[in-house]
Amino acid sequence: MRAKKPKESLTVLTDLVLPGETNYLENLFGGELLARMDRACSIAARRHSRRIVVTASVNHVAFTKSVPVGSVVTLEAKVSRAFKSSMEIYVDVWIEDRQSGEKTKVNEGIYTFVAVDETGRPVPIPPIEPETELEKQRYEAALRRKQLSLVLAGKMDPREAIELKSLFLD
Amino acid sequence: MRAKKPKESLTVLTDLVLPGETNYLENLFGGELLARMDRACSIAARRHSRRIVVTASVNHVAFTKSVPVGSVVTLEAKVSRAFKSSMEIYVDVWIEDRQSGEKTKVNEGIYTFVAVDETGRPVPIPPIEPETELEKQRYEAALRRKQLSLVLAGKMDPREAIELKSLFLD
Amino acid sequence: MRAKKPKESLTVLTDLVLPGETNYLENLFGGELLARMDRACSIAARRHSRRIVVTASVNHVAFTKSVPVGSVVTLEAKVSRAFKSSMEIYVDVWIEDRQSGEKTKVNEGIYTFVAVDETGRPVPIPPIEPETELEKQRYEAALRRKQLSLVLAGKMDPREAIELKSLFLD
Amino acid sequence: MRAKKPKESLTVLTDLVLPGETNYLENLFGGELLARMDRACSIAARRHSRRIVVTASVNHVAFTKSVPVGSVVTLEAKVSRAFKSSMEIYVDVWIEDRQSGEKTKVNEGIYTFVAVDETGRPVPIPPIEPETELEKQRYEAALRRKQLSLVLAGKMDPREAIELKSLFLD
Amino acid sequence: MRAKKPKESLTVLTDLVLPGETNYLENLFGGELLARMDRACSIAARRHSRRIVVTASVNHVAFTKSVPVGSVVTLEAKVSRAFKSSMEIYVDVWIEDRQSGEKTKVNEGIYTFVAVDETGRPVPIPPIEPETELEKQRYEAALRRKQLSLVLAGKMDPREAIELKSLFLD
Amino acid sequence: MRAKKPKESLTVLTDLVLPGETNYLENLFGGELLARMDRACSIAARRHSRRIVVTASVNHVAFTKSVPVGSVVTLEAKVSRAFKSSMEIYVDVWIEDRQSGEKTKVNEGIYTFVAVDETGRPVPIPPIEPETELEKQRYEAALRRKQLSLVLAGKMDPREAIELKSLFLD
Repeated sequence: MRAKKPKESLTVLTDLVLPGETNYLENLFGGELLARMDRACSIAARRHSRRIVVTASVNHVAFTKSVPVGSVVTLEAKVSRAFKSSMEIYVDVWIEDRQSGEKTKVNEGIYTFVAVDETGRPVPIPPIEPETELEKQRYEAALRRKQLSLVLAGKMDPREAIELKSLFLD
Repeated sequence: MRAKKPKESLTVLTDLVLPGETNYLENLFGGELLARMDRACSIAARRHSRRIVVTASVNHVAFTKSVPVGSVVTLEAKVSRAFKSSMEIYVDVWIEDRQSGEKTKVNEGIYTFVAVDETGRPVPIPPIEPETELEKQRYEAALRRKQLSLVLAGKMDPREAIELKSLFLD
Repeated sequence: MRAKKPKESLTVLTDLVLPGETNYLENLFGGELLARMDRACSIAARRHSRRIVVTASVNHVAFTKSVPVGSVVTLEAKVSRAFKSSMEIYVDVWIEDRQSGEKTKVNEGIYTFVAVDETGRPVPIPPIEPETELEKQRYEAALRRKQLSLVLAGKMDPREAIELKSLFLD
Repeated sequence: MRAKKPKESLTVLTDLVLPGETNYLENLFGGELLARMDRACSIAARRHSRRIVVTASVNHVAFTKSVPVGSVVTLEAKVSRAFKSSMEIYVDVWIEDRQSGEKTKVNEGIYTFVAVDETGRPVPIPPIEPETELEKQRYEAALRRKQLSLVLAGKMDPREAIELKSLFLD
Repeated sequence: MRAKKPKESLTVLTDLVLPGETNYLENLFGGELLARMDRACSIAARRHSRRIVVTASVNHVAFTKSVPVGSVVTLEAKVSRAFKSSMEIYVDVWIEDRQSGEKTKVNEGIYTFVAVDETGRPVPIPPIEPETELEKQRYEAALRRKQLSLVLAGKMDPREAIELKSLFLD
Repeated sequence: MRAKKPKESLTVLTDLVLPGETNYLENLFGGELLARMDRACSIAARRHSRRIVVTASVNHVAFTKSVPVGSVVTLEAKVSRAFKSSMEIYVDVWIEDRQSGEKTKVNEGIYTFVAVDETGRPVPIPPIEPETELEKQRYEAALRRKQLSLVLAGKMDPREAIELKSLFLD
């Protein structure tokens, strides 16, 4: 399979925050944003693999700023690394100020999806070739995150997670 | 503030998987499950802190089995560790077979919430005292996960994350 | 078929009241609560019968207190009596005060479900054996309610509704 | 206050059954229909009282036929009796066959609403004068149903429920 | 096929505006109203044709007044003209004042639907015979609107749109 | 006010078609697509004007191809012409084939929005300068469409709609 670029899977989802999606402080509910991020990531994963894809895990999502009702929210998802049949997708979330048009980053998330056939069995996917500096950083870090997932799930001995381990030594 | 037990925050959310919440393979959408988990965790966080709470991060969610349309899904969320004003909540997800009644674990997730006042500023919360073996394990691991979050966010030097680091050394 | 206990069908649904589910006074819409109660009862009916179940009737629902936006609402549904293929399910609804944690009962409802096969035809279900005092009371009253339904639907002569009739004499 | 006719509160809600509102057998979920009935009844109650109205109870709903996905469902709600500040509303539900256009009754329900002011306190409402034969029957029966509710709630001695009691005696 | 009257397809959809459907100014979202209008028109089209129908185009919708949260909104849709397998449907939208009961027109829309068979292929539909003055006006204007659609889509030479052209000449 | 380019208001909304949004033929409901188009257009209008915006009219939407469940749908909205306080927005809709990645245009729509202040009163907006060939065509046509709206609404004498009239004359 031909290697693909991250930009080939770029998925943009711009939408409003409606009143029915907000919490007590009139900010977008965390859960609703997680669901939108999952949909954006699933489309990016599908664009990379051209297969049916299912959520395998959410590796990290950090909510740094709240998202008030009426905001325009933009999600940008892009595959950051492809493994055998799983992919890591990075999604960045911005809101923009109505009056100044200025953009503020409110959130980022890392999801893993698996490509499957019609019966739900994993299938191979194309490799990926990062281009920009940021894409390369995220590509590198993805391996450490995968090792970390395996370690935390008890499926890998921490001492064998070479790339991850190196983070904690000199 | 009096220390609380994890069981005081136990939150059970049993509900059906409706056809409008499913993906191409007629399984519950990952994003919809993430949203339900967020709601269950937010209630557990609120029961522990008796404060307004907002999602701070999703530390890990692993989807191990798919959830077919028509399933009865049970989520059980419980605070696993309390820090100054943030809490880690563990949520376990099961489905049950209609005919045999047998339960299968399909998913687990770890969320962090922060207790805030009416203006959105963090407020102190009660400490927690784990009771069962599982609660104690999760309590211990929570500290390593917090260090990991700080390391991944570039807010802590990996060499200072003592508890986390010990995982990778012998 | 082995008789079952009411507690074997106990179903707990704890969830938040979101702003999109409220009426003009910012309280949970009656209709939305009726729908949640129906889902909780259907799960209890399914747990008792291990069959596909469909709503047959709503016998009574009383809204005694309003449920403000942002509330944590807990529904507890349990089969109160099993007939040939129909079941009566009792559902109690509480909200809890965020600050004090105190619970207030806001609503209770009685639903009837029928167990059916894949073609929609009624199938036999296990009998039930009430254990607690409250379960026994509800079990007894269920028969009078069934007679009442039949009388109101013109399917039973009021003078033959022995148990019901006894309420109004001596 | 001038007495009103039932037809002045007639409310018609015709809508489709969408796939996201159906159960395992691809029929409209009981709970979803209960919610639509509640909305139709609340509009009828509001048209009679010209006040804010809130659901007080659901007295009876019988599901006689299932409602398949894709159906056109018509609800017709009309106030059947007005008390001091509460009203009983009758709602009839039909589906129509797409090809023949023939209508089938699938459901009927009886709801009670209370008219309130902006602070939630009950306010007086106009009396009602039934016109048609069916309206008169439902008007009469409403009193027995009200007594029945009070008896079942333990707020009235069954022996004093004259109209209701007469049903069971000759 | 027997010709039908517009009133045979009359479809009334009365419902509330819930808080989750409103925009920044607490008025009903334009998009949500467009969706309700589409559902009402599709039912009218189906009642005229007794076929499966799909939206072909929205010819014009004018929002003349905003619709505040809590409003009772009434949509009345009726087929205004039938062509070979397509129909034009006119939908009028009112709100009513809670206290005075007075009705205000807020919106009207013109939709075109096509009747299709189970494979999605167009099928012939009955002709229509307008009765009232308004129905006759709308019937006449429908032909000009159809020509206009064809002209705007580049499928008709403007000089051949006789009825439409006559509008602009004396 | 500085003139803006159409590309400054470009809004991309990529999302999935979920099962709960589909009709009898398992295609995306027309009404649901209209609502998504309205949201995308409202964001484009807001980006051009940096004001609160409300839907004024839907001038034309043509559904040329159906959108099957599971599709990835991309909407691209851009302001095509700015008047005093109203704007015309063009929205194009594509789906892409999962396996080949090929894009097919399924729909396009023209909406008009008005910029308002916090009390709902119209406010002036910046002019627009089209750049590409397509933007220029749409800019020109927008004037004819505005005249047409006014003529159809009876607010302009057809003989004075110079640009529109010229379409029908040689």
